[in-house]
Amino acid sequence: MRRVLALACLILGLISAPARAETDALRSTGNLGVIIERASGSVLIVDRTAHAILDRVEGFGDLSHASVVFSSDARFAFVFGRDGGLTRLDLLTGAITGRVMQAGNSIGGAISDDGALVAVANYKPGGVRVFDADTLEPVASYDTGAKTIGLVDLPGRRFAFTTWDTGETWIADLSAPDLEAVVIEGIGANPYDALLSPDGRSYIAGLFGEDGLTRLDMWDDTPEPQRILPGYGRGEEPLPVYKMPHLEGWAQAGDRFVLPAIGHHEVLWVDAKDFTEAGRTKVHGQPVFAVARPGGRQVWVNFAHPLNDTLQVLDTQSGEVIETLKPGPAVLHMEFSPRGNEVWVSVRDAGVVQVYDTESFELIAELPANDPSGIFFTARAHRLGL
Amino acid sequence: MRRVLALACLILGLISAPARAETDALRSTGNLGVIIERASGSVLIVDRTAHAILDRVEGFGDLSHASVVFSSDARFAFVFGRDGGLTRLDLLTGAITGRVMQAGNSIGGAISDDGALVAVANYKPGGVRVFDADTLEPVASYDTGAKTIGLVDLPGRRFAFTTWDTGETWIADLSAPDLEAVVIEGIGANPYDALLSPDGRSYIAGLFGEDGLTRLDMWDDTPEPQRILPGYGRGEEPLPVYKMPHLEGWAQAGDRFVLPAIGHHEVLWVDAKDFTEAGRTKVHGQPVFAVARPGGRQVWVNFAHPLNDTLQVLDTQSGEVIETLKPGPAVLHMEFSPRGNEVWVSVRDAGVVQVYDTESFELIAELPANDPSGIFFTARAHRLGL
Repeated sequence: MRRVLALACLILGLISAPARAETDALRSTGNLGVIIERASGSVLIVDRTAHAILDRVEGFGDLSHASVVFSSDARFAFVFGRDGGLTRLDLLTGAITGRVMQAGNSIGGAISDDGALVAVANYKPGGVRVFDADTLEPVASYDTGAKTIGLVDLPGRRFAFTTWDTGETWIADLSAPDLEAVVIEGIGANPYDALLSPDGRSYIAGLFGEDGLTRLDMWDDTPEPQRILPGYGRGEEPLPVYKMPHLEGWAQAGDRFVLPAIGHHEVLWVDAKDFTEAGRTKVHGQPVFAVARPGGRQVWVNFAHPLNDTLQVLDTQSGEVIETLKPGPAVLHMEFSPRGNEVWVSVRDAGVVQVYDTESFELIAELPANDPSGIFFTARAHRLGL
Repeated sequence: MRRVLALACLILGLISAPARAETDALRSTGNLGVIIERASGSVLIVDRTAHAILDRVEGFGDLSHASVVFSSDARFAFVFGRDGGLTRLDLLTGAITGRVMQAGNSIGGAISDDGALVAVANYKPGGVRVFDADTLEPVASYDTGAKTIGLVDLPGRRFAFTTWDTGETWIADLSAPDLEAVVIEGIGANPYDALLSPDGRSYIAGLFGEDGLTRLDMWDDTPEPQRILPGYGRGEEPLPVYKMPHLEGWAQAGDRFVLPAIGHHEVLWVDAKDFTEAGRTKVHGQPVFAVARPGGRQVWVNFAHPLNDTLQVLDTQSGEVIETLKPGPAVLHMEFSPRGNEVWVSVRDAGVVQVYDTESFELIAELPANDPSGIFFTARAHRLGL
């Protein structure tokens, strides 16, 4: 191996670059995102390249637990509020272009792979409701008879979701009219959240009522519940559980998943092939989100109250903590730029969103926000299973 | 398992959805793409949702071998022509907003993870030139003293590329001024193409001058060449090699890579963990591209002349051919919608681009195009290693 310095720059251009066309009125949305302001029920539209707030939009109802998906053209954000509100926001104009109160209490949503349908999972009443993404007219309704969680999109205009009360995973197929939903029983006691692995194959439910997790192989024609990580869970509760970790925070880093331990100051490394435990790392507190930087080289972890002023960065290969940051009180959420060069961090009780360089760990920007929680960038429009 | 029909739709909305705001002058670019018209040196701007051609733009020079990357905001396409032209196209206005003839003969380009820098790999003169993505002003130049291929972006404002004549892989770090490029020797005889695995970790070069491939682990601080798949290559040439397969066509599907065999009517399945061969599937002809549908459930394969009127679809789990399509003469390229519900196929000698539903394999749209070759959708803006 040797090292070579780049040559001094030499213009070989035969034609020089003209100034950029006068197109200031136009803008694209590939570098936009939204930040949830949970206390005020408002949403900030941000430019992640400029580290700038473009607009604040009011009128989303109760955003104390909110999530967001994006239209296939990355222009519209669909905001799911805790109060059952489904609101469509035009990122180019800042206008709310549709809003329905579709239930009394909801827990999250998803958009179909073709961008045509938006689905919402509900606590009260239970079940899942599906809407036309263009008109917000209702298209279908699945009455699960139970609180419904873990809603994700699957390829082929399908959705998967799971019931808290009855331990069932449903697979709803909307590729043609009047197809029956497949219901898989025996998922376990009180599934509280579920995720789809980044490769779209494994649907994994966390259980509140018992230890372990349940995996379904979505490539099987008839998926069967498979218990994995039997020691994983609340167990004997050696520590009080301040917050059940978000399973959406599961990260795949190389050939391992990273998983927040429940009630312990640890993250777990899990073999991505056979779902056995492959190691543990001691961390600062009870982890809430463990999120892989795109490319999987590091994992960033935040923590539950009362240790939630801290972020830690783990090296994927060694499993070691390589950096500890103190963004401030109540670090609630992290969102990476799509190719991972930056991470945005909401620090609720400081009223700011911070932007860090993921190579140097330097704080490079700070944006004011009212009780910021979730941060969502439009590149999510192009990913499965969110 | 049981099956349940969705309930008839029931509007629970307390507030009905208003009509969409009048914003026809605005558009987003998340569902746009470009199609290379190789004979005429022109580019089509397409809407992949509407299956519509929005514009034809002329003036790109020689596009007989062309590739494209996108700006971080998904608004601008950077088109790399065979003649060394680097051209920036505004997808919102259809205007060319910059063009430099940066070399005499080039083979492809890449954009840095932060979207700030565009790099081009050149045959004549060799080496890599790096430009500011906003101004197209030159920023750095790496004189490798050889034809340079296999240029990809790496995390941390870095690029990797490889030399045909001297068998070196260079890692150029542009995160600070005047950093030395790392040069790794011993890649092998005449690397002709290289790729970065979807997880950003493995950089793999194909060799024209000998059998096998060479892998570098980009997570290592000092990557060492590792020979893999020693039986893979031109070997005894039992069949004439009509076209060396594009390594960018490597697909990761579940825990295996899929790889076009060279000179054989086969695709190879390769273990993604240890890079050993895990099986072969007989296919219609010499494969050129083997591309996984996002989610990895199927792999689509096209073929070299004279059997290039055909596409085959392989099931990832069984490895079997599950569908054979005959799009028409000279099927050159395939591009999936970002979440895989559709695939666009260029059929050069029929002068059309076809769109297939990936679930039903039905032809759902056909667009006229002059000698279409490469198809590139803007979601690529958000992916590493392209």
